[in-house]
Amino acid sequence: MVVERVVLAARPEGSAGLEHFRLEQVDRPAPAEGEVLVEVSHLSLDPYMRGRMSDAKSYAEPVAVGAVMTGQGVGRVLESRTEGFAEGDLVTGRTGWQSHAVLPATELRKIDPSLPPSSALGVLGMPGFTGWVGLNKYGRPKTGETLVVAAATGPVGAMVGQLAKRAGMRTVAIAGGAEKCRIAQETFGFDSAIDHRAFDNVKDLRAAIAAAAPDGVDVYFENVGGDVLRAVLPLLNTHARVPVIGTIAWYEGASNDGPDTLPALWRQVLVKRLSIQGLIIFDHWNDFPAFLDMLKGGYLGKQVVAL
Amino acid sequence: MVVERVVLAARPEGSAGLEHFRLEQVDRPAPAEGEVLVEVSHLSLDPYMRGRMSDAKSYAEPVAVGAVMTGQGVGRVLESRTEGFAEGDLVTGRTGWQSHAVLPATELRKIDPSLPPSSALGVLGMPGFTGWVGLNKYGRPKTGETLVVAAATGPVGAMVGQLAKRAGMRTVAIAGGAEKCRIAQETFGFDSAIDHRAFDNVKDLRAAIAAAAPDGVDVYFENVGGDVLRAVLPLLNTHARVPVIGTIAWYEGASNDGPDTLPALWRQVLVKRLSIQGLIIFDHWNDFPAFLDMLKGGYLGKQVVAL
Repeated sequence: MVVERVVLAARPEGSAGLEHFRLEQVDRPAPAEGEVLVEVSHLSLDPYMRGRMSDAKSYAEPVAVGAVMTGQGVGRVLESRTEGFAEGDLVTGRTGWQSHAVLPATELRKIDPSLPPSSALGVLGMPGFTGWVGLNKYGRPKTGETLVVAAATGPVGAMVGQLAKRAGMRTVAIAGGAEKCRIAQETFGFDSAIDHRAFDNVKDLRAAIAAAAPDGVDVYFENVGGDVLRAVLPLLNTHARVPVIGTIAWYEGASNDGPDTLPALWRQVLVKRLSIQGLIIFDHWNDFPAFLDMLKGGYLGKQVVAL
Repeated sequence: MVVERVVLAARPEGSAGLEHFRLEQVDRPAPAEGEVLVEVSHLSLDPYMRGRMSDAKSYAEPVAVGAVMTGQGVGRVLESRTEGFAEGDLVTGRTGWQSHAVLPATELRKIDPSLPPSSALGVLGMPGFTGWVGLNKYGRPKTGETLVVAAATGPVGAMVGQLAKRAGMRTVAIAGGAEKCRIAQETFGFDSAIDHRAFDNVKDLRAAIAAAAPDGVDVYFENVGGDVLRAVLPLLNTHARVPVIGTIAWYEGASNDGPDTLPALWRQVLVKRLSIQGLIIFDHWNDFPAFLDMLKGGYLGKQVVAL
């Protein structure tokens, strides 16, 4: 009766690789009163995890070297020592990267067994919820306006694109590779999709986005930073909104090579009266039930596709 | 019967100087039906005017070379061809830099003759209104929080500081020179004042601000950009708000010398969930009557000092 688990073996500089992790076996723990033992079937792999591998000051504590890598998971209850959960229940919680986890009942949530279990980690979980909050609270979509989102086939981008389309926006996907671009349009209904890998400089990428957004960009849903940000900035319209939920392009280190582009950004903020708003989803969990209700209220499997 | 007027003679590169303007005399125009002839007694000199001297794309058209320099003024009605105004009325409007102006009645506003006429161009005019809108709509002051504003003895900064103080905030002024710092504290009631000229590098300026804001900065009311922005950024608290109403430090050209500081800003936006909002006051004129009402309702000459 062992637990297989992945621990952080060393802090990566630059790209994270297998050498920064270690597979361990330990004895399976027993749940105490009020706790639940879960057999984990699905693990999430999210961009924010790169931040947890680093000890740079951030909004959350880093994972300690030698500790189980953090992350959301889905699994079945093997043993419950609380009334709210029973053996066999399908649940989600912050299990970490391991085969079995003991968690307090207060940190677990039952999920609908009629849906794909992985959806609780994607479009129906933290990433989808982040897209919903960011778009509605800070993106403020309006009919006839144009939205651009990168990583458009990820669960955040896919959710944002579908909600924006439903709100009457023109939607422009940015994704890496022809296959993802095809999925963005065919599965998620983006009006157009741009393969950023097809461009080796910001100017050409910008021209492609401009062609797909002939009326300019009203909402740039920011999850990548880097060249996509640089390409989009001059295309923003007056009163454009920029929810910032991630900067994936810079998670493994950002180049500070000049020129300094902050003054140009700041001028855009003023002249175009931009609204830029950072978002970390744990400020918004109170709204999660409303999000699930919204999806149940006719979206799921219709307007919103859960991969 | 002539009009003396200042026209833009050439577009400045870098600092604007006398050589970019020319004094002219022209015949005094007569008002047409619906227009008013004003003898101008007070002219405003505002940072935004540097933008009008440039033909870089912005939110407003540049002043044409050879045209009267734009700007708000105060004066008395010499001749009225409309019912709403009579000879002798004290008015304000976009007169431009000239001794006399003919304006449509719809573009003039009568002002209270019991107040200093220049106040209509300062704390009771566009700048004061900008401070009020920026602080209340986008700064969202809260008791016990800390505000930092530069150019603190200007009409925007002075208004912002006084309103923030009244809202229960700790207020930190940044100004140029000991005399302005004294005025910021003694006249406008800032809790502390920092002379940015006393520092020749961002790090030391930052240390001085940090000492005056021991709990960090919750509202950075941005009107300067440049080194003050760079100094304040790392001091911003989680959920800090940054209304951006001007970037004076960069109006005569910003250095793009590296390193590129945009990635660091963007990380702060995300990690601290910053709210950055650009503001151009002409989007908000509908609220101007409420602003004047607020000042009349007991503020003027009590909490709010109009220089």
